[in-house]
Amino acid sequence: MPVSVPVSLDLASLRAAYAEGFDPRDLIAAVAARIAAHDDPALFLARPSAEALAARAASLAGLDAEARAALPLYGVPFVVKDNIDVAGLATTAACPAFARMPPASATVVARLEAAGAIVVGKANLDQFATGLVGVRSPYGTPRNAFDARLIPGGSSSGSATSVAAGLAAFSLGTDTAGSGRVPAGLGNLVGLKPTLGLISTSGVVPACRTLDCVSIFALTTDDAFAVLEVAAGWDATDAFSRRIPLGRVGPRPAVVRVGVPQPRDRRFFGDVAGAAAFTDALDGLAAQGFTLTEIDFEPLFAVARMLYEGPWVAERMAAIEDFLTAQPEALHPVTRTIIEGARGRTAVEAFRATYRLAEAARAAEGLWRDVDILVVPTVPRAWTVDEVEADPITTNSALGTYTNFVNLLGLSALAVPVAIRADGVPAGITLIGPGGGDAALAGLGRSIEAAFAPPLGATGVARPPLVPVVAAPQGDEIGLVVVG
Amino acid sequence: MPVSVPVSLDLASLRAAYAEGFDPRDLIAAVAARIAAHDDPALFLARPSAEALAARAASLAGLDAEARAALPLYGVPFVVKDNIDVAGLATTAACPAFARMPPASATVVARLEAAGAIVVGKANLDQFATGLVGVRSPYGTPRNAFDARLIPGGSSSGSATSVAAGLAAFSLGTDTAGSGRVPAGLGNLVGLKPTLGLISTSGVVPACRTLDCVSIFALTTDDAFAVLEVAAGWDATDAFSRRIPLGRVGPRPAVVRVGVPQPRDRRFFGDVAGAAAFTDALDGLAAQGFTLTEIDFEPLFAVARMLYEGPWVAERMAAIEDFLTAQPEALHPVTRTIIEGARGRTAVEAFRATYRLAEAARAAEGLWRDVDILVVPTVPRAWTVDEVEADPITTNSALGTYTNFVNLLGLSALAVPVAIRADGVPAGITLIGPGGGDAALAGLGRSIEAAFAPPLGATGVARPPLVPVVAAPQGDEIGLVVVG
Repeated sequence: MPVSVPVSLDLASLRAAYAEGFDPRDLIAAVAARIAAHDDPALFLARPSAEALAARAASLAGLDAEARAALPLYGVPFVVKDNIDVAGLATTAACPAFARMPPASATVVARLEAAGAIVVGKANLDQFATGLVGVRSPYGTPRNAFDARLIPGGSSSGSATSVAAGLAAFSLGTDTAGSGRVPAGLGNLVGLKPTLGLISTSGVVPACRTLDCVSIFALTTDDAFAVLEVAAGWDATDAFSRRIPLGRVGPRPAVVRVGVPQPRDRRFFGDVAGAAAFTDALDGLAAQGFTLTEIDFEPLFAVARMLYEGPWVAERMAAIEDFLTAQPEALHPVTRTIIEGARGRTAVEAFRATYRLAEAARAAEGLWRDVDILVVPTVPRAWTVDEVEADPITTNSALGTYTNFVNLLGLSALAVPVAIRADGVPAGITLIGPGGGDAALAGLGRSIEAAFAPPLGATGVARPPLVPVVAAPQGDEIGLVVVG
Repeated sequence: MPVSVPVSLDLASLRAAYAEGFDPRDLIAAVAARIAAHDDPALFLARPSAEALAARAASLAGLDAEARAALPLYGVPFVVKDNIDVAGLATTAACPAFARMPPASATVVARLEAAGAIVVGKANLDQFATGLVGVRSPYGTPRNAFDARLIPGGSSSGSATSVAAGLAAFSLGTDTAGSGRVPAGLGNLVGLKPTLGLISTSGVVPACRTLDCVSIFALTTDDAFAVLEVAAGWDATDAFSRRIPLGRVGPRPAVVRVGVPQPRDRRFFGDVAGAAAFTDALDGLAAQGFTLTEIDFEPLFAVARMLYEGPWVAERMAAIEDFLTAQPEALHPVTRTIIEGARGRTAVEAFRATYRLAEAARAAEGLWRDVDILVVPTVPRAWTVDEVEADPITTNSALGTYTNFVNLLGLSALAVPVAIRADGVPAGITLIGPGGGDAALAGLGRSIEAAFAPPLGATGVARPPLVPVVAAPQGDEIGLVVVG
C-alpha cells in the first residue's frame, strides 16, 4: 500500500514517511493539490512547471538508500521569496517590470537543492522587500493562513503563509528590518533570522546590502535550524559573507538570564489581547525556569528609529536606482515614495549615521553582561488588512518596533510561536542574541516552543513532543558567541 | 659621577642609562637643549611648560626601584602629533582657529604616561591630517632631519622629524592614507601602523573615522613594538576600538613568502635611485632567505584610488563641518579645497563605495593564500620641498601609491628603514600583513632592519645588533592572524 503524504510537512513527519517508502513524486502531487485547494491567487508569483517538478521528483525517487541518506533535506518541499533567484524562474521582487531571468539559482537555493530539497514556488512579497505589512504588492495580498482578517506581515508575506498553510515544509524569506520575523509572528510560525553573513546573499535582490540576510520560516525551531545547517556557509561570491562557526544545538542551560522590555517600553499600540499574551508568555518563561530581568529598551528603540529615519534608505536606492529612474511609475506608489526619500541624502549623513550606529552598538554590547538573550513580542499588534489599508505608513513603522534594531546591531534572532489568543490571533515572541548566537537561540527556542506547545502553523496539527538533545556543546554554558 | 644622556634615545640606550642611575630630570634638560639646538620653529606647536616637565621628571625620579621596574616606558620622552589630545595643551590639528583645550589626554597618551613616558611636545602636521607631504601647515614645514632638501612627509611631519633628529625616543602619529608610514620612509625611521581598532582613537581629531588609527614612529622596530604593547588595548569610549589579541614578537620563521609588486607595478615617478634602492632591498631580502613572489598590484592600486576619488572625503567633512562652514577662510587653502570636495557627494555613493570596497577586500583576501606579507617601497619617490611646492596635488596623490589601500582593506603595516642611497636620501620598505598581523610584522621587521643595518634615524648612531627573541609563539608558523 503506498505511503500517503503526511498531514503536516514538518521534517520529522516527512522523514518518517520517506523511511516508510513515501515517494517524492507523490509529494509533488500532494503539494500541487494543496496549493490548488488553498486557492490564493496572491501567494505564488511563479511555480516550476509540472514537467520540471516531475523530473526533479523522479530524480530523487531514483536514488538508492545510501544516496538518500546523504541528503539531509531529501524530498523536502520549500518556497522561495521572489527576491531570491531560482534558476528557470524569473525574479520579480514583486515588481513586474523589474522581472529578469536569473543566470543561476542563488547560492542558498543551490545549497538546499543539493541537499535534496525541492523548490515548489516563488512567493509574493512587499515589493523590493520594502515593508513589514505584506500588502505592498501589485500581485495582491497573500491571505494570512492562520487568520484571514489579519495582514500576513511582510515583506516575506507569501513565504510565511505558504508554510503556515502546510504547502511546504519551510520557506526562505529575507530580513532587513524584520521581514523574517514579523510574518512568522502573524502566522504562528518559527522565523529564524540568522546572524548577518551566515547565509550567502549572492543571488538575492538587495534591499539594504549591509543589513540584508536570508531568513527561514518553518513549523518548528528544529526544522528551521536543520535548514540553517544546510543553508549556512561562507561564499566567496558574496562580499558580505562571513566565516562564522554555526555550532550545534545543545540542551537548555540551567541558568538563562532573559532581558525583557521594562513595562513602560512594552508597546502594543492598543492591542490589549497582545499585551496580555506577552505577559502570559513571560509568566510562562518564568515558570519554565528562565530568569527574567527588565531592561531599558530606549537605546534599542533609538537604533530602530535610525533604520527608517537615517540614511540607510539610500541602500534601497543604490540597489535599484537605474530602474527607478527609468521607470518610476513601475513601482508600488508607497514603495516608490519611501525609496525616493533617499534623494538628497548626503555622504556626510551616511558616514555620521555609521558613527552613531557604531556608538549605539558599543553601548548595546553592555547588555550581554547582564542577560544572555532578550525576549520581545514578535509584533507589537496584530493589525488587520483593513486597518493597514486605512493607514499604510504608521502601521508599517510600528510593526518594526521590536525588529528594526536587530540587524543594525548585528544580532541573531528567532521568532517562536507561543500561544493562540482567545480571539484566535497567534501570539509569538522573539528571542534575540548576540551575533553568532544562532545555535544557542535555537536550543532555547525549541525548548520554549515545546513548553508552550501551540499547534503547527495553521495546519491544525498538534506540535510533536520535543526530541531531547544529547550533547551539550559547552557543558552548562549557554554558548552564545559574540561575533562582530 | 652623574650618568649622562645617551646619544641615541632608543629604548635600549635609555634603559641602560636609567639602570646606571641616569635621572629623568637630566633627560628633560637634555631634550630641551637638543630641541633648542635643532632650532626648527616649524616643529613643535606646543610644549609642556618647564615647570610641568620638571614636576613630571621629579615625580618619576622619586619612585623607588620596584615602582620604576613596573613602568615599561620609565622616563621615555615622546612627542605627540597635534591632532591627539594632551591634557593642558591646546589641540590645534595645525589650524590655529580650531585650537581647543582638551578635557583630558587621549586614551593612548594616558596609557603611555601611565607606563612612565613623558610628553615633551605637540608636533606640527599637515592640517587636519589631510596630506602626505608635510608642507600643508600654516605653522610652516618641519625640516626633514635626515635631508633638509626633502619634504618631511606627512601628515605626521613633526612626529617623524622629532624622532629622526633624536629629540624623543618615539612619537605618536596618525595614519589614514599613509601618514604613519610616508614620513617614516622619508626620515629613515620605523613607522608602525597598527591594525585599525588596536589603539584607541578616543581623543584624536578624526580625519576619516572609519579608517583612522594612531601610529608609532621609532628608531627601531623593537622600540615601536614596545610602545605598541603599552598603547594597544580595547577602549569602551572608542566605538571603533576592537578586541584584537596583540600577540608577541617571535623569531623569524624558516619560510616567509613575500609578495612584491610585479615590475610593471613598481612606480617611482622618475626616481631612478629610489627604484634601484628597492631592487637592492629585494635582493637583500632574497639573500636573507625570504621567498619573493611577484604580485599583480593593480587590484590594490584600485582600492588606493578609492580613498581620494571615492566618498571617504565626506568623513573629513563630517569631522569639521560646523567649523568649516563657520570659518572657511581659517583652513589651509589646499586642505579646504580637498575637504569641500565632499559637498554634493550622496549617501547612495557612500553606500555603493562601501559595497565596492567590500568586494575589493574579498578579492584581496586571496592574496594571503599565496604570500605571508607584502613588501613595497614606503614612498615611491623622495620629493623635495621645492618639487612639492611646485605641484602640491599630484605629488601628494603619488606619495600614497603604496599606502592608501592599507587601511581601506583593514591591513597592518610596518615601515622599516633599509638603506641610505648614495645621494644621501633614505630608502625604506614597508611590510604589509593581514589585519591582526602586527606582532608577526614586527618579528620580521626587526630581523630585516638588523640585516640591512642603516643608522638610527638622523642621529648618526649605528644601529645596535639584534637581541635574539627566545620564544616562538607558534613554533615554525608565521602566526599572522586575520581579523575582520
